[in-house]
Amino acid sequence: MADMRFTPEYVKSCDMAQLQELAAALREKIISSVSKNGGHLASSLGAVELCIALHRVFDLKRDPVFFDVGHQAYAHKILTGREAAFEKLRHADGCSGFPNHDESEYDPAAAGHAGAAVSLALGRAAAKEQSNTPGVAISIVGDGSLTCGISFEALNSARACGKRLIVILNDNQMAISPNVGGLSRCLNRIISGARYNRFRLAVKQWLSHFSSYRTLKRMINRFEDLVKGIVLPPGILFQELGLRYLGPVNGNNLAELVPMLERISRIDGPVLLHVTTRKGCGCSFAEESPQVYHGVSGFEPETGKIPSGGGDNFSKALGRHLIKAAEQHPDIHVVSAAMLDGTGVGEFALKNPSRCHDVGIAEEHAVIFSAGLASGNMRPVCALYSTFLQRALDCIYCEVVLNRFPVIFAIDRAGAVEDGPTHHGIYDLGFLRQLPGFPIMNPANEDELGVMFDMAYNLSLPCALRYPRGAGARYPELSDFPVVYGKNPVIRQGTGDIVIWALGAEIDTALAVADMLPEKATVVLVRFIAPFDREIAVELAEKRHYTIENHCVKGGLFTTLCETLSSVPHGRITPFGWSENEVVGHGKVSELRQKYGLDVNSIAEKIMKNE
Amino acid sequence: MADMRFTPEYVKSCDMAQLQELAAALREKIISSVSKNGGHLASSLGAVELCIALHRVFDLKRDPVFFDVGHQAYAHKILTGREAAFEKLRHADGCSGFPNHDESEYDPAAAGHAGAAVSLALGRAAAKEQSNTPGVAISIVGDGSLTCGISFEALNSARACGKRLIVILNDNQMAISPNVGGLSRCLNRIISGARYNRFRLAVKQWLSHFSSYRTLKRMINRFEDLVKGIVLPPGILFQELGLRYLGPVNGNNLAELVPMLERISRIDGPVLLHVTTRKGCGCSFAEESPQVYHGVSGFEPETGKIPSGGGDNFSKALGRHLIKAAEQHPDIHVVSAAMLDGTGVGEFALKNPSRCHDVGIAEEHAVIFSAGLASGNMRPVCALYSTFLQRALDCIYCEVVLNRFPVIFAIDRAGAVEDGPTHHGIYDLGFLRQLPGFPIMNPANEDELGVMFDMAYNLSLPCALRYPRGAGARYPELSDFPVVYGKNPVIRQGTGDIVIWALGAEIDTALAVADMLPEKATVVLVRFIAPFDREIAVELAEKRHYTIENHCVKGGLFTTLCETLSSVPHGRITPFGWSENEVVGHGKVSELRQKYGLDVNSIAEKIMKNE
Repeated sequence: MADMRFTPEYVKSCDMAQLQELAAALREKIISSVSKNGGHLASSLGAVELCIALHRVFDLKRDPVFFDVGHQAYAHKILTGREAAFEKLRHADGCSGFPNHDESEYDPAAAGHAGAAVSLALGRAAAKEQSNTPGVAISIVGDGSLTCGISFEALNSARACGKRLIVILNDNQMAISPNVGGLSRCLNRIISGARYNRFRLAVKQWLSHFSSYRTLKRMINRFEDLVKGIVLPPGILFQELGLRYLGPVNGNNLAELVPMLERISRIDGPVLLHVTTRKGCGCSFAEESPQVYHGVSGFEPETGKIPSGGGDNFSKALGRHLIKAAEQHPDIHVVSAAMLDGTGVGEFALKNPSRCHDVGIAEEHAVIFSAGLASGNMRPVCALYSTFLQRALDCIYCEVVLNRFPVIFAIDRAGAVEDGPTHHGIYDLGFLRQLPGFPIMNPANEDELGVMFDMAYNLSLPCALRYPRGAGARYPELSDFPVVYGKNPVIRQGTGDIVIWALGAEIDTALAVADMLPEKATVVLVRFIAPFDREIAVELAEKRHYTIENHCVKGGLFTTLCETLSSVPHGRITPFGWSENEVVGHGKVSELRQKYGLDVNSIAEKIMKNE
Repeated sequence: MADMRFTPEYVKSCDMAQLQELAAALREKIISSVSKNGGHLASSLGAVELCIALHRVFDLKRDPVFFDVGHQAYAHKILTGREAAFEKLRHADGCSGFPNHDESEYDPAAAGHAGAAVSLALGRAAAKEQSNTPGVAISIVGDGSLTCGISFEALNSARACGKRLIVILNDNQMAISPNVGGLSRCLNRIISGARYNRFRLAVKQWLSHFSSYRTLKRMINRFEDLVKGIVLPPGILFQELGLRYLGPVNGNNLAELVPMLERISRIDGPVLLHVTTRKGCGCSFAEESPQVYHGVSGFEPETGKIPSGGGDNFSKALGRHLIKAAEQHPDIHVVSAAMLDGTGVGEFALKNPSRCHDVGIAEEHAVIFSAGLASGNMRPVCALYSTFLQRALDCIYCEVVLNRFPVIFAIDRAGAVEDGPTHHGIYDLGFLRQLPGFPIMNPANEDELGVMFDMAYNLSLPCALRYPRGAGARYPELSDFPVVYGKNPVIRQGTGDIVIWALGAEIDTALAVADMLPEKATVVLVRFIAPFDREIAVELAEKRHYTIENHCVKGGLFTTLCETLSSVPHGRITPFGWSENEVVGHGKVSELRQKYGLDVNSIAEKIMKNE
């Protein structure tokens, strides 16, 4: 049943006590929907008051708010006409888990990848100034996103055209994983600084009386180094870049937050407001384990109990295999960018802390840092999701491939995912498969991932292992075909005219399709998209080809087969992959497959119709 | 004749006076070679002493130095066995203009794109620490490159594993163009700060006596804001991130530089040494106009006179057309990343300063900022070189295409260039052509660029104009075929079996090839790689196809034609483009074309042999 309070108008009209009740109602709604549908719980709970306060003080149609990453925007979504859609969060017929330009005029842009919000808001602020339209542009950036270089690039530019810019630093002292790096230390110092300030300053002044003595002088210098960060005005880093720093304020306290935003709304920018929030705020289990409840696929709403993770999957297999390989090879290192657990290397990190480098949300640095490790004869494994690796495609070329540094890229979540267009990993091959001397392996299942990892290690070349989220193919016949470098085996020899080509784990779909066809089809497992097995392609050239891949139909398997057969007479090639003509939306992957014709039935039907 | 002094051994053994003579000899060599061959003059002249001092103090085989961007490394190249090759700088049979892993063991990695050096050196430093091998890893970063977010990501990570890391900030107060942004202001303040420190501190203390009066208190606060940056310890920004800051020292003075590096070599990192240098140092005309002599294609060595630029070219045409269009459309803005002059929009910037945004070396921010401008109803034109746009491919997808923000990308230098593998713009299409709703137009010449720009403006979609460095096609018959959206016209109707497909400006090559063939070939001008003109492709399908493109053979025109014809019977398709199997080297573009079989003769010969 619709809650009439969930509107920007109510937020503007009610009193402080009612606002607090509203916050509780929003929390209840978020917990209930995420428990059923999965989603980003802890960040969104932490930002409830922030969303309320923004709607209270600003007119968010006029003063657009750009959420960085966007997984903290649930309360904002519920407050802007999406209460019902939020019930079906992350379903194809519900609302997406991120701000979405197509869903609401209250979402000025899609969000999903870190680092974009300040740049977007700065551009919007500049446009406002140029066109002399009223209002401000607001960006909300988590402390985790702030480590992303793009945020820095934008802050560094803010003074030039940011008079209408408000940056809200939503500091929960944690990105997806606890934060790393100098900046995070710096923020912590600001927060803890206030209470020590007076005491340390006094000590320093007292010490300075003895400054004619040499030893003491050195002591003072050292001491000054120690306390420098603490006695400095807070936010000096931002002020150095040209922003006016305000805060920190308690971002879960509406009575603090609302007046501060009112104050800010009246001053010229660029302003940075430092807000501290608690991840998971108002939900005991999420507060206690914010990492666990960062992104979940569902839980028991009262207790927080998460259903056990089921069977094996690619991420687990990578982690397991890396631990084993690292025992044998002391040169193996792991590099990730705030995705240790997601990519399955959390346990590796615990076992090999000095050989695991979580650089925070900084994919470009992760890739180039891996190149640096390799240049010093280490063997880094750079484990990232396909969608985030996309932020660093050029670094793979310039810093890894050109130098032939043997970095192994473990590309997880390669394919469509629930989170929607900003998170699908369906465009990486279009760029990567062009690069000279860069083998790309597509394991069909967890066992093949292990075999291919060893192969990659022994190759000593830059190369990639690419696999989707979740479990690999389960057809038992795969184990009859050992992995051979550069070979794409025929898994089933057909009797008729049809060949089905499957990229990696799509072999399960392909075999299920083949089972439905009246005539026996030939099925080829494409384990290597690069180098591509020309021999088998030419041998089968004159048949009718169907390609199945968890990638955009352009730039992946279909394209590679077309190129390979371009110089020989060949039968028609029909692709099954994600549309190149429209943006692939959000939803359960099974829903998406049906919607875009990538499920077993749709494919089989189309083949039988000889389309 | 070889100069026996140009070795690391000599640098280590000689006295200070001899070092200074060596610096003069290196400068002479650099000026002489660049005057003939073109190259990066001003930056390399500024860094001569830095290169000498590094070889003096360190063993650069053991203590590798990673140059950021790398156009400042000429002295280092000459000192490491490449004196003779340097005579043929940027020729296919000479040395490249950038550090090159394949050229010398003194170059630990290729360089070319900004922002990579600190990450690379940090990785190398971590590898040294892990493997317990002696030495340090050094990175040299210009103040321009420091605005690139990747540099920040790396500095932010330095404390974790940078004990062996030395960052040298080569501050010449200018990237390719004068620097922009808060960071650059901050550096300038450090340099100019010392002399004002005492005075301002005194004033502030005096003012503080009156602090009981409210007005004065406010005055003090404001004043404090003003002087904060100046009274702060220098380099506070870097110290906040966890690096030890030393400097600034005069980087053109060996007597200052050598002892400082010796000191640094003995302390634990991460250390940041701030060095100030003069771009063009030791060459009067380059010192006076460092921007002009940043990158030149040749000049009179005595006077610096640069031969006039010849006729029209794509960059000039963009600038010219933008000035005209901006008069008509007040919503047109230009965004670039330290490439205003290179992309031809320098004059636009002078005429429309408030509508031109040079964000410094920060391509990702440039793209997302453009998205922000477009979200506020401006019509930004984001003008970047293809190779540097590659740093921001994901931002084009996530922040521009997904939101359907009508940003026009003017992709200059799309194709092979003299500077070699790090600078070729030959992989962009592989990624971009997959994106839904993203037209890509390939003007054949300057006139078509103008027409397509207007078309792009009227489309109001995210889209790209893609063209190579230099002049467009000159065959007069092109003007008989007006640009029609989505149509790839047949420029010559052939009589036989051959169709030559040319992407944009390659139409000149195609027509010249056609002129050499015995039978009259059909020639198609591909103005639109997306959307691709299926109709004409299918109509010509059964002929023999040859594609010519200034792109990697994978991911561009050849690939698109293969895909388009995959479902109809078609003749053989043979590609002419840059190799997908090997790294395309450096050299004059005419040399590269010959080497890789992309010149008119090689193509014609191959077609006549029916290969």
